[in-house]
Amino acid sequence: VLTAIDVAILPAEARLMDGSAFAVVDVLRATTTIAAMFQHGIARITAVDDLERARAAATERGAILFGEVAGLPPAGFDHGNSPRDIGALSPAGREGVMFTTNGTRALCTVAGLGPTIAAALANASAAAGWLVAAEGRAVIVCAGNAAGERFSLEDLAAAGAIVRRLQTLCPGARCGDAARVAAATPAALVEASAHAALLRSIGLTGDIGFCAREDTCPVVPQVVATGPGYAVLTRAG
Amino acid sequence: VLTAIDVAILPAEARLMDGSAFAVVDVLRATTTIAAMFQHGIARITAVDDLERARAAATERGAILFGEVAGLPPAGFDHGNSPRDIGALSPAGREGVMFTTNGTRALCTVAGLGPTIAAALANASAAAGWLVAAEGRAVIVCAGNAAGERFSLEDLAAAGAIVRRLQTLCPGARCGDAARVAAATPAALVEASAHAALLRSIGLTGDIGFCAREDTCPVVPQVVATGPGYAVLTRAG
Repeated sequence: VLTAIDVAILPAEARLMDGSAFAVVDVLRATTTIAAMFQHGIARITAVDDLERARAAATERGAILFGEVAGLPPAGFDHGNSPRDIGALSPAGREGVMFTTNGTRALCTVAGLGPTIAAALANASAAAGWLVAAEGRAVIVCAGNAAGERFSLEDLAAAGAIVRRLQTLCPGARCGDAARVAAATPAALVEASAHAALLRSIGLTGDIGFCAREDTCPVVPQVVATGPGYAVLTRAG
Repeated sequence: VLTAIDVAILPAEARLMDGSAFAVVDVLRATTTIAAMFQHGIARITAVDDLERARAAATERGAILFGEVAGLPPAGFDHGNSPRDIGALSPAGREGVMFTTNGTRALCTVAGLGPTIAAALANASAAAGWLVAAEGRAVIVCAGNAAGERFSLEDLAAAGAIVRRLQTLCPGARCGDAARVAAATPAALVEASAHAALLRSIGLTGDIGFCAREDTCPVVPQVVATGPGYAVLTRAG
């Protein structure tokens, strides 16, 4: 049974938190996009923590190459990191490789710590349903900004939406200090964050509203294999 | 003029934040204790990031040796980290050396980044008065827990009390995302934090109420010299 709920404010903190199950949140936009990919039937995604390795892995595996640097698709990438675009790509049955500044790095950092999923507002209830089955401590990990080294308001707010669901599902679980702060942070602050302002400034306003909607996607992307610099996800359940 | 207000959730984040002036907050208890020392007339304090170096520095300088490991004074220390004890020590005119798990480490990390003070709820208004004179960005740095690697609710809450004062003093300054979360965190959560529970468990309940009181101490401890592993503070102004 789930006995404790906590939030890692940055990925590095997760290593110190003795979690039984982890959910990585990069709500603007990587984990929202990953959830959308599985909703549209992609077979597997390899999240990679290095841009060149992402290019090489996609070529080697004949995979669709997704991702961003400074919010935009790098040269040679098939697609960016916009969850709105996924439906039009017909990714069903295909394989993806993904590199983003924060989300895929965080997945690679956390995947080695224990069972790990990708979570966002889009799949908040599905993610909470998966986490609540853990024995012990569920840790929701904010991917952060600036390669995981800066606080991310949008990830804290999205983590809070998952914490509130866990509190409802499992009222006996103890909330850690950061989980309590997250639970008190309105999900609406995702749209008021500095990173949302950055996305607006590069013409990606539509992504923000998409990422801010809760429970549009009943899918849980789960890490099934990991090693130095990569984490492979498939759809759970 | 102060143009921006932000909060570093952990000391390491401060390096990435382009601050013009910094306030390090370890409200339970190091920066509260440092403020109390200057209120009682201590001449200077050398904050040190290593226990053995603290012992050596105190011997060499004939200084009073303050500090804690796991909340309690290490062997050979003259005093712990309790702000309530300072008045009885008659420290006026003397010199102190201090090592604590989070606060003195954070001071050593931040002191090299720019003008730096020690702040807490006890000197929240005095600290805000000093910060508001900065040109550019004021950054309030949470010392954190676990040697500065874990989130600290009590430091976020105390930082928020300073942010709210800065917002009043300087309504035109822009608040960063973490400063907005801090400003929304009630100061009363200092007493509800996991670290407060730890202090209660080792018999230091009285310290918590002492550290939770605002504006009992109109003193600003300022770093006047720093180098690898140390920061020297005197009373500003």
